[in-house]
Parts: sequence; C-alpha cells; structure tokens
Amino acid sequence: METHKQLTIGLFGFGVVGEGLYKVLQQTPSLKAGIKKICIKNIDKKRNAPASLFTTERDELLNDPEINVIVEVIDDADAAFHIVSTALNNGKDVVSASKKMIAEHLTALLELQEQTGRSFLYEAAACASIPVIRNLEEYYDNDLLHSIKAIVNGSTNFILTKMFDEGLDFKQALVLAQQLGFAESNPKLDVEGFDAVNKWTFLLTHAYGITAGPDQILFNGIQDIQAADAGVAKSKGQAIRLVAQAQKLRNGKVAAFVLPQFINQEDHLAFVKNEYNGVVIESGFADKQFFYGKGAGSFPTASAVLSDIAALRYQYRYEYKKLYHHQPHELSNDIFLRVYVSFDDINLIPKDRFEWIEEWHANEDRKYLVGVLSFDELKNNNWWKENNTSLVLTPDPVIEDLELRKLKKKSLELAGIL
Amino acid sequence: METHKQLTIGLFGFGVVGEGLYKVLQQTPSLKAGIKKICIKNIDKKRNAPASLFTTERDELLNDPEINVIVEVIDDADAAFHIVSTALNNGKDVVSASKKMIAEHLTALLELQEQTGRSFLYEAAACASIPVIRNLEEYYDNDLLHSIKAIVNGSTNFILTKMFDEGLDFKQALVLAQQLGFAESNPKLDVEGFDAVNKWTFLLTHAYGITAGPDQILFNGIQDIQAADAGVAKSKGQAIRLVAQAQKLRNGKVAAFVLPQFINQEDHLAFVKNEYNGVVIESGFADKQFFYGKGAGSFPTASAVLSDIAALRYQYRYEYKKLYHHQPHELSNDIFLRVYVSFDDINLIPKDRFEWIEEWHANEDRKYLVGVLSFDELKNNNWWKENNTSLVLTPDPVIEDLELRKLKKKSLELAGIL
Repeated sequence: METHKQLTIGLFGFGVVGEGLYKVLQQTPSLKAGIKKICIKNIDKKRNAPASLFTTERDELLNDPEINVIVEVIDDADAAFHIVSTALNNGKDVVSASKKMIAEHLTALLELQEQTGRSFLYEAAACASIPVIRNLEEYYDNDLLHSIKAIVNGSTNFILTKMFDEGLDFKQALVLAQQLGFAESNPKLDVEGFDAVNKWTFLLTHAYGITAGPDQILFNGIQDIQAADAGVAKSKGQAIRLVAQAQKLRNGKVAAFVLPQFINQEDHLAFVKNEYNGVVIESGFADKQFFYGKGAGSFPTASAVLSDIAALRYQYRYEYKKLYHHQPHELSNDIFLRVYVSFDDINLIPKDRFEWIEEWHANEDRKYLVGVLSFDELKNNNWWKENNTSLVLTPDPVIEDLELRKLKKKSLELAGIL
Repeated sequence: METHKQLTIGLFGFGVVGEGLYKVLQQTPSLKAGIKKICIKNIDKKRNAPASLFTTERDELLNDPEINVIVEVIDDADAAFHIVSTALNNGKDVVSASKKMIAEHLTALLELQEQTGRSFLYEAAACASIPVIRNLEEYYDNDLLHSIKAIVNGSTNFILTKMFDEGLDFKQALVLAQQLGFAESNPKLDVEGFDAVNKWTFLLTHAYGITAGPDQILFNGIQDIQAADAGVAKSKGQAIRLVAQAQKLRNGKVAAFVLPQFINQEDHLAFVKNEYNGVVIESGFADKQFFYGKGAGSFPTASAVLSDIAALRYQYRYEYKKLYHHQPHELSNDIFLRVYVSFDDINLIPKDRFEWIEEWHANEDRKYLVGVLSFDELKNNNWWKENNTSLVLTPDPVIEDLELRKLKKKSLELAGIL
C-alpha cells in the first residue's frame, strides 16, 4: 500500500476529550500519529500523561515545524479561533471540536482554508460519533437534499426523555442530567438551544452551502417546556424533541430553524432517546436515511477526532461542494409554522398575530392552543418565550405560502366559521 | 479550491442501476464526470439515452485510453470479474456494485489493487444508500469493533415484515414482494441467504480484515420460516429478521454468520422494516451506532455508485486497514448458538446433538423447542434445513465455550434434573 503522510500532533486541551484522544491514540498505534506536545492552561493540575508532554506556551506547538497537525479541543471559543487561524496560516492541518468557534467564525474559517490550502476538519463538532459532516459532504448533491432533521444536542434530549418517560419536571430532569454528566454545571448553552444552533450553522453549510451565522437562524431551547406539555404529547401518542430542521421550499430556498417539536412515534427521531443524537436525511436518490449514535462524551468525541486525523493521512479536505461547486442556497423566511402554545394567561398571548387558531384547550391543567404563525412573527418577537409560555412545533410544521390560503379556508370551515 | 481529476466513465450495464446512474449524473453536472460509452448485451433493446453512447464491444471501453473510470453494474459475476480485472490492469479506476463477484473473487481483487495501485470502490454492493463500507474503513479501529449486526437484504426483510405485520405466509409475502419489485422473479439468491452472505463476506474484510469466501461462512435464508414461527415471535414481543452478525470473542477471534434471528423490540434492527436495511455497530469508543436506509433500488444504488465516483476525484482508495495495518482477525467456530427449532415430526430432530434443550412446546400448531447447538453442528450438517424444519437464532445467540458449562448446569437445574 502507498505510504501516508506522517502525522505529528500538537494537542490543545486535555479535558475529557483531549485525554480521551490521548488514550485512543495510544490504543491505535497503526495510525502512526503521535502527540508531540500538549498545551494546557493549568500546568499544576495532575494529568494522566508524562509531564514532559505538557506546556502552557501556545507557540511551542504553533511554531514547531515538526508538528504538522494541530488538534484543538478546548472550551474557549476565542482562544480556539486564534489557535486554529494561526495554525492554518503556519501551514498546519487542523482538527477541531469547537462548535461555538466554528459557528461564529465560519466565514473567516472558509477564507483561511482557501488562502492556506490546508485541511480544517471538525467531524467531532456535530453529533460526535455520527459521521454526519463527512456524509453530507460526500453523499447528497445540492439539488437532491430535500430535508435534514436532527437531534444534535444530547443534554436536552436526555432531559426531554426523562420528562416524558418518567414524568419528571424540567428542573428534576436537568438535575439528573447534571448528576449523570450529560449536562454542564452551567447548562444554559445546551438547554437554551445555543449549542444546537451552533452545530446547525455549519451543518447547513455542508448540507446546502448556506453560510449564515447562528444569530440568523430562528431557535429556542427547551427551558420553557413543562411536564404538562410532555403530558399533552403523550396523550397524542407523540414525544417532544429539540429538533434542528432544514428543508427545501418550492421557491428553491431553504427554511431552517431549531425548535422544540412534537414527534410522531413513527418518526425516526422518536427512536432517539436519552443522550443519543440522530439525523434523518431525505434526498432524491437515497430516499430516507437515518444515522444514530452518541453525540457527546469523551470517547465518542475522541473517536470522531481520530477519524479526522486518519483522513489527514490522505490529505482529505472538505470541498464544501454545495457552496463552491453549486449555486448555494439562500435561507428563506417565507414560511408559516403550525405551533402548539401553552400558557398561564390567555391575555398575554397576542391572538391576533396568528394566521388562524385551530384548537383551543382552556380547561386543562395547562391551557394551550394550536395555531399558525408566520416565521417572521417568531423571528422578530419574543412574546412566545415570555410569561411562562411554551412553544412547540407540531409534526411537519412547515406551511409554504402557497398552501396557506387553502389550509386557512379549510381550517375556518372546520371551525364552523365559513 | 484545488482542481480534481477529470473523470471519463465507461459504463457496463444499463439496467435499473445503470440507467439510474445515467440520470443521476445528468442531474449532477457539478461532478464533471461524463459517461463516454456504455457497454450492453442487447443492442436492439430500446434505451432512454442516445444510441451513439452504446456498444456491445467490451474492449471499446476497456482499451480506450481516454476512459479513466470503469463503472460496472451488470448481473453476470464472471463477466463482471473479467471487466474489473482487465480495467484495473489497464490502469483504470473501477466502481462496482456486483456483490457476488466481489465476494467470490475477493482475494484476487485485493491482489489486483496492490499490483496496479488503482482504486476499486464498491459502496453500492452492500446496503446501497448506507455508507457502511466507507464508515467501516474510516472509523472503527480493529481492536475496538466489538460487533457488527446488520440487515443487508431488503427482499427478505420485506417478506419477514409482511409475514409478521400482516400474517401472510411465506409464499404470499414472496409474491407480494415480487409484485412490488422488491424480489427477483427467481428469488433464490435473496431468499436463501446467498445475497446476504456475499455482502457479509467483504463487509467482514472492512470490519475485521477477514478474507474468507462465502462458502466459509455459516448461513441460511428465510425459505423455511413459517407463519407460525412469526406467531411465536409475536407472542414473545419479538420479530424475526435475517441478521448478518459478527462479533469478537474472548479468544480474540471473530464469530460470523448470517441466519434468521429473533429480535427484541428494543433492538435497533427491529426498527428496520420492509425493504430497508440497517447496520448496528458496537465499538469501544463510539459506543453503539445505527445506520438505516434503503438497501436496494435504482436510485439508492446509483447514489452509492455516485459517491464512489466523487471519491475517485481525490484518488480515494480503500486502505483495508484491518487487513494490512493490523493483525487481521481469524474466524472462529469455537462457539455455541442458542436456537429455536420448529418442526413437524420430533423424530426427525436429532435431540442428542443439542448441548441441552431448554424449552419444549409439543402442543402448539407448530411444535418447537429452544436449545443450544455447537457452531460446528450447524456448519457440518443439514438436518436443520430439511424435513420442513425451521431454525431461528434467539436474541444474543452466541455462547462462548467458557460460559457453556455454567449455563448448562443452570439450565438443567431449572429443568429439575440436577
């Protein structure tokens, strides 16, 4: 067999993922990839690796001509961007797991890859053990990817599963997640959807050539979901998941959002429970595909980093085919969403902003309605996140402009108004 | 972005897959891969492509120096091998979907790849739209792949699903599969397990570095499964699937077989219904992963061929890491299997060949027993395929030698014998 590029690695970060990677590399000598130096913040902390490997000086790694691969698995997005951009500029290939950094600096990172010609791989940054980025790159042609729907955050999925299966309320489920190590001590990034929308940002690039920042994508987390909402889902034979979704519209553009959603039991995503992640891809040729696996954790993340390192041996680079080789897609706000909204006080719900309201339940423990809102209404206003209001999308929530009148008429007929 | 190898394709075969690929390529101009010539058997048949593309002369493609990629999607395994080996020897890269040919000529094809240095890719040959080969190549290190369990044949899975969900008997379900195009008019290859074991042969190479021929792997199909067997499964909350399985044993070797198996409802493979395929991979680092998608059909197969063609642009080759970069695994017969056996006449069942028998149901419509047999007993004898006998593995069927005594003792105690 042909000989491969020898990889000499400079590693930034020795937390759970960094240490996981160190162990994984020790157990895979066949890769012939060795860690030469590890940069950490706190030199005094006890580490399960020889002291001679560690330094606190970034430049010892970044300026070492022998090191040809920088692997970066640190928490600090700003420091990560500095490390990644310096490494690329210094002619090194880079593997990263920093979703926040990648989401926030996507455009700059794309430019850096073009300018330097180096590889920048980050399979571990989304869905860890599920090879979703590589598959989006290699498999689905631009015009053929009808939709992609995914559970990309394990913490929130664990919490929702426990609320549903064991009737816990949100706070109890969160505490359990923290005890089991599935949620951070400061869970805001996960729970409020920031982590999911960060991942969705660059998955949209690989899926559709979209390069929008996380601030341009409509999202919310699960912080407002109540046990009573889970109860409503259960009574309908459904579950609630935090779903990242993108789908092609008839106008050729793409609608994308990350919001809690009711899921039918036959939906592949209903299969995804606890801390797992799942991705459902619908495409013209391959039909419906479903990928399922652990989305976080030391070894699943390290194994994804490892696969990137292995790919560097044959100079693998993301081509960003949907961005560079096709007409990239634009995001569209020109849709409507069918939503479930539960609330304490109907007077705080701006009923007139709904296109129409289909259901109305005023006598339950938790009052709720089902109706249709424009995407812009959700994007431009916050009433649906305030005053103890919960908003959950219904299954197949997207209504395109053209369908709207017809559906509205039918809905009003059913209500006996027409 | 860097420039890629220009691909000029010679295509063998214009059946459903070949024509699917032709259409797919037309819809993906970005790939810059053009079909220069298509070799077919019958020049008089009407085709949905310009007549000038077609020839019946193999050498027009194989000897054309402009053609640098041969894509081969024909039915005849012997002709396919001749085409593939000639193309590799002529310095062309090759993409194939011929599982039977690959399984039967695996060793020769490995040698040809080494000798010629050309790429030989065949993602479409197993599970079509599921990128299982590429993922086994890139992701799971030898020592870390605990097991792989898969449904690799859509025809049999469709038949089993219909027997289970709709109470059809085997023949009714087979006829339905044929009407819907999920089974060939001569269904023997699918139904009797030949297709599945062929795929399993080379998936074992990518998973474990095993290069055994299909004749060395224990297999059977579903031709003996009766509606009553499906009924027993249902009464236990289980389903029956034709499962291809391989798992690492404590002795460092690998047990592999393709047999019908009872599947618990929580098993990921229970999710795989009708004509779909599914793969469950358990590994040390990534934990449990599940891939699901269409395993056959014109477009799913063509999309897999397309992904191989796309990979040729950056000179991708299978490295066969588990074979060349590791100590490859050996197959082991040193196991026992817990089986369900149903039958008409107990006198035709060699009871003394069982290690022990745990259950005995003589009063049902269809009589059956549950017991333990050595792997060699199944491999070396055919009584379990004869006289209207059905054999189905129980969930988690593998018992390693070391466990056997303990389990046997416990089983006999429960039976009140000790």
